[in-house]
Amino acid sequence: MSGDKKNLLLLFDRPKEPVFVPKGNERKAFVVPAEYLTDKYKPVGTQVASRFGSEASEQIAVNKISIPDLGEILDLTRDENFTLFIPKHQRIAGRLINIFLGVRNVEDLIAVAVYARDRVNPYLFNYCLSVAILHRADTQDLDVPSIIHSFPDKYVDSKVFGQALEDATVVPENDRTPIEIPKDFTASDLEEEHRLAYFREDIGLNLHHWHWHLVYPSNAELSVVNKNRRGELFYYMHQQIMARYNFERLCNKMKRVERLIDWDEPIKEAYFPKLDSLVASRGWPARVENQRIRNLRRETDGLKLDLDDLKRWRDRIFAAINSKSVTDSTGKTIELNENEGIDILGNMVEASILSPNGEFYGNLHNMGHVFLSFIHDPDHRHLESFGVIGDSATAMRDPIFYRWHSYIDDLFQKFKSALPKYTVNQLNYPGVTVEGIEVGVQGGKTNNLQTFWQQSDVDLSRGMDFQPRGAVFVRFTHLQHRSFTYKIDVQSDLAREGTCRIFLAPKFDERNDEWLFTDQKHMFIELDKFKVNLKEGKNTIMRNSSDSSVTIPFERTYRDVDTSRPEGGDALARFNFCGCGWPDNLLIPKGTPEGLPCQLFVMISNIADDKIDQEVTGECNDSYSYCGLKDKLYPDRRSMGYPFDRLPRDGVDTLQQFLTPNMRVQDVTLTFENKTFKPKEVIS
Amino acid sequence: MSGDKKNLLLLFDRPKEPVFVPKGNERKAFVVPAEYLTDKYKPVGTQVASRFGSEASEQIAVNKISIPDLGEILDLTRDENFTLFIPKHQRIAGRLINIFLGVRNVEDLIAVAVYARDRVNPYLFNYCLSVAILHRADTQDLDVPSIIHSFPDKYVDSKVFGQALEDATVVPENDRTPIEIPKDFTASDLEEEHRLAYFREDIGLNLHHWHWHLVYPSNAELSVVNKNRRGELFYYMHQQIMARYNFERLCNKMKRVERLIDWDEPIKEAYFPKLDSLVASRGWPARVENQRIRNLRRETDGLKLDLDDLKRWRDRIFAAINSKSVTDSTGKTIELNENEGIDILGNMVEASILSPNGEFYGNLHNMGHVFLSFIHDPDHRHLESFGVIGDSATAMRDPIFYRWHSYIDDLFQKFKSALPKYTVNQLNYPGVTVEGIEVGVQGGKTNNLQTFWQQSDVDLSRGMDFQPRGAVFVRFTHLQHRSFTYKIDVQSDLAREGTCRIFLAPKFDERNDEWLFTDQKHMFIELDKFKVNLKEGKNTIMRNSSDSSVTIPFERTYRDVDTSRPEGGDALARFNFCGCGWPDNLLIPKGTPEGLPCQLFVMISNIADDKIDQEVTGECNDSYSYCGLKDKLYPDRRSMGYPFDRLPRDGVDTLQQFLTPNMRVQDVTLTFENKTFKPKEVIS
Repeated sequence: MSGDKKNLLLLFDRPKEPVFVPKGNERKAFVVPAEYLTDKYKPVGTQVASRFGSEASEQIAVNKISIPDLGEILDLTRDENFTLFIPKHQRIAGRLINIFLGVRNVEDLIAVAVYARDRVNPYLFNYCLSVAILHRADTQDLDVPSIIHSFPDKYVDSKVFGQALEDATVVPENDRTPIEIPKDFTASDLEEEHRLAYFREDIGLNLHHWHWHLVYPSNAELSVVNKNRRGELFYYMHQQIMARYNFERLCNKMKRVERLIDWDEPIKEAYFPKLDSLVASRGWPARVENQRIRNLRRETDGLKLDLDDLKRWRDRIFAAINSKSVTDSTGKTIELNENEGIDILGNMVEASILSPNGEFYGNLHNMGHVFLSFIHDPDHRHLESFGVIGDSATAMRDPIFYRWHSYIDDLFQKFKSALPKYTVNQLNYPGVTVEGIEVGVQGGKTNNLQTFWQQSDVDLSRGMDFQPRGAVFVRFTHLQHRSFTYKIDVQSDLAREGTCRIFLAPKFDERNDEWLFTDQKHMFIELDKFKVNLKEGKNTIMRNSSDSSVTIPFERTYRDVDTSRPEGGDALARFNFCGCGWPDNLLIPKGTPEGLPCQLFVMISNIADDKIDQEVTGECNDSYSYCGLKDKLYPDRRSMGYPFDRLPRDGVDTLQQFLTPNMRVQDVTLTFENKTFKPKEVIS
Repeated sequence: MSGDKKNLLLLFDRPKEPVFVPKGNERKAFVVPAEYLTDKYKPVGTQVASRFGSEASEQIAVNKISIPDLGEILDLTRDENFTLFIPKHQRIAGRLINIFLGVRNVEDLIAVAVYARDRVNPYLFNYCLSVAILHRADTQDLDVPSIIHSFPDKYVDSKVFGQALEDATVVPENDRTPIEIPKDFTASDLEEEHRLAYFREDIGLNLHHWHWHLVYPSNAELSVVNKNRRGELFYYMHQQIMARYNFERLCNKMKRVERLIDWDEPIKEAYFPKLDSLVASRGWPARVENQRIRNLRRETDGLKLDLDDLKRWRDRIFAAINSKSVTDSTGKTIELNENEGIDILGNMVEASILSPNGEFYGNLHNMGHVFLSFIHDPDHRHLESFGVIGDSATAMRDPIFYRWHSYIDDLFQKFKSALPKYTVNQLNYPGVTVEGIEVGVQGGKTNNLQTFWQQSDVDLSRGMDFQPRGAVFVRFTHLQHRSFTYKIDVQSDLAREGTCRIFLAPKFDERNDEWLFTDQKHMFIELDKFKVNLKEGKNTIMRNSSDSSVTIPFERTYRDVDTSRPEGGDALARFNFCGCGWPDNLLIPKGTPEGLPCQLFVMISNIADDKIDQEVTGECNDSYSYCGLKDKLYPDRRSMGYPFDRLPRDGVDTLQQFLTPNMRVQDVTLTFENKTFKPKEVIS
């Protein structure tokens, strides 16, 4: 019986192995009607069915339904790469999602998914089935496995797969040792930008980015796209990526990223991803030094676009920002106001289908990715696919991602700079004073945050198509930090609620000078945000770093179908949603061996202007700062980034001058210990 | 017993599978002493040995010898690429070859090869063991399998391997159908240079080039390098490649190749090889548009070289050419004379260790390949390996190969142009007159050569490491021609011998003008050369295209260890040697659909100046024109390329004027039929 809805998840296992090959470590096989077989397997249907059927632990009979017309969906062949950035691919994905959403029950969903699986592009299939499971009422309690298990090739050095094949074939399972991925496999330190590779190539970071774009698609049916404040969150999540990247750069004695403002000049930073696409059986194209963006003429991708188009969109968006108004597709003028303006602008710049006038304001951010991704073959003469910058699962690996998003962020900041400045009233919380901050670090010194290298293992075997079963682990090395606890002393004149907001920024700029507030405010990375109940008098707030509203724990980033997880439908639905979340191991930047002086900023803001009236329960509301909450309002009424999202009131030049009594700054140092700890040898 | 020397050939099977895994379709397993296992397998030695031993059809006990010190040989790691163009790699290869040559008998050779196999780079191992087998007295009767069976990834679209894995795993062997490689997988016709891809990417062509450099290494022990006229053959074989490439270009309405003479300017033609290196588990790097050659600083490759060095070598070589003399390493002056000068110059330009002064004249040709192959990462900051132009197995795929070799050839032509012109006496054969030429084409019209596309299959399974056994064929499409027969009428005043020389050139140049002889002579491609016995009076010489002295038959190009082959030691030794040979399917250029007017040139030259006194027997002397004869003198005493290798005597402006009575020209057309024939559907 295909009735057990968990069988749907078997379809994520080994995406290129035909559906009749037993799936998962449980070796369950789908028994499909003969007409479901692809042309390749129709002639040998009986033979293979009996061979694989006999290997299976359980046979899952699949419903015979009227076969859907896949039509345009098949235009994307099975050995191409799929990306959400190309409109044609978005449209194709929308059709398949609609097919999956449209069938009446889980049995039929399994049937149609089984039928589609060996016909459509495997990566497209994974995306569309994930979205459908996430949005169908009858499947929200299913937990989609992390994409790294289906497509490890998007996250792991291509060299590993040769080794993994050897181990899976020759070495007995119990004798296998994890295959180590060298920390520096894409470049050497001779390439200055490589100093940031540990951040850009962090597996959890790239999984977060994939997941963010999965839960916030820019093009799908309206109910899926039109999530509360999604345009603003697009701005804020990426602003925080930039703040965090620039922070990491200062840790590595590099200046902040240069915006990609001149689109005609050669791009000096190269990137060689050293990833293979197992779907396409091709290496990912490299982006070599000093390439220039060129006009796109790629008919198979439906792309006929000039750099001039991109420039026109840019100019129109700037005109909208400067006039604080946009013209919608009916010709009506919409004001970009203080609170909702950024949300409209976010949708317009990305662009999502919520853009008030996609025809006129275009598709700036997405197409920037696309232009950059085809820099090596803009007219498809060489039959090359897009580079890593063109796929949200891999884009953050390439240095150009940050130059492009620095440009995009700057554009949002132009808008933010023209908004009314926060008054002291909008910042202060009369009666509340933050009197002291102390950061206790496990096994370390007070106010001295500590980072180091840690190794972790992940099992690739679910993505190793056509290879013997049995776990094959790779061991990768990532940044980690000792866990720490904030101790915040707050004086309140009466019992009340408040929102505690915690940010961190470097204390000095690239010149080692103190910051002007107008610059430093862009450097503040959000570490946590949570509601506090203050009693009258002295309060001591204790909060652990692992409770951060920004991050998700390591286990959730890499979760597999076998991992234990929260029970019950509603909790599980949120769990899926919360695959989105900054990886815990990157909560704080790397720091420096000698200790980078930083400023920890704590604010208790006035609950009256913060509060959203809604119930939030369950285990999985812990990374809402960058990801929001599923089917809920964003749980903070303030503009995202508050209080650092606007220019400061007149007379404020430094952080110290900015402070009201409900804020406080504590100097902390951020020390990196250049030592690598083995898995489980955990001190975090 | 490892005594059966044929077991050596099992070491070429599945180069990455450890030596204890049963080898070949026969599934013979080497039983190795425990200390032969690599560190990875030492802990599980007993377990895997018994597992794989029980799978084997036969166990081959391996001698325990004193373990050799591999030393520097291990500097090239197992997952790097190996190339003969980099001096450090050449040196390492020399050491391993010496180890293989130095052991006293076949049993010990098997032992040391088994020991080395899982430790040294697999590609290096293949090369060194091939050379050793070719040159050891006790193994010359072994037939080394074609490299395409060990490393198909160097010859076949990377996409195929994903498909092959699916077929090997899922599809029963008898139901497998060949995997088709599209004819145009590397680019589209939007890229003008792609019109020549069928030539550049021809598998047989690239196998020929690999094999040529295998039998004519530029660096190894003197007895191996110092073959008769090897410097001259380097010039001539590559001159003919250029003539053939330019001929193909005219067939495709393209002008002749532009020499790569300006080494500072961006190179406009790009090349995206779309090959994976299975050894390195990396895609081969692409060469994108408009890259510039830059100074090399790659310490791991032992390369510290400026473009200025290359220019200095060039200038010194030009000085030698213009002065017709070189200064050897002892300071002595050596004349570059009329007959042997080109041989010295060839060794100097390539450069081989026979160069009279490698220190001074450098390593122009090889280093040109190296500079071009690292154009994307000259200082190794991105940890990238060389592009296809850096490996003689793949170099001919890249358009830049021909621009570079056009430059190299031009340099040789400068030298040739300064030599004494052939007098009528040196050309004529008094008493011999060629009176008529007719080309009979099988199934076609007289004097109308015909080409078409043909598909052929090759089994990849010997190179598919760690995958189930059983043949997996790929089907590729290549140029082919109907077989044809020359009928040459010759009048002789008495019974005598002569050498019949047959060449072909296009009749018109790119402007559709008739050629000046000084240009056309570079366009003549050698089709055949053979001894004729003339009787007094009228002679009719019949000769089939398949007997060409230039080509080897299809079966030999792709020969596998299982193919039947000549019997007996001496014949086999030559057979190996003759893996070198132009692929029969490219004997004549593609022509045009409307028929390209060409000129077929036939000459009977005077045996007195041609003849080499030596015995030539056996089945395998049939491609000596470009490859010479193993352990023999080059079987034609004339300068290679005669009679087209010099400027014509005064007063000769056209081919017609050049002719003496023992020469004749016949107009033929070269017609391409744009139709693809399936394998065996042979009409050639």
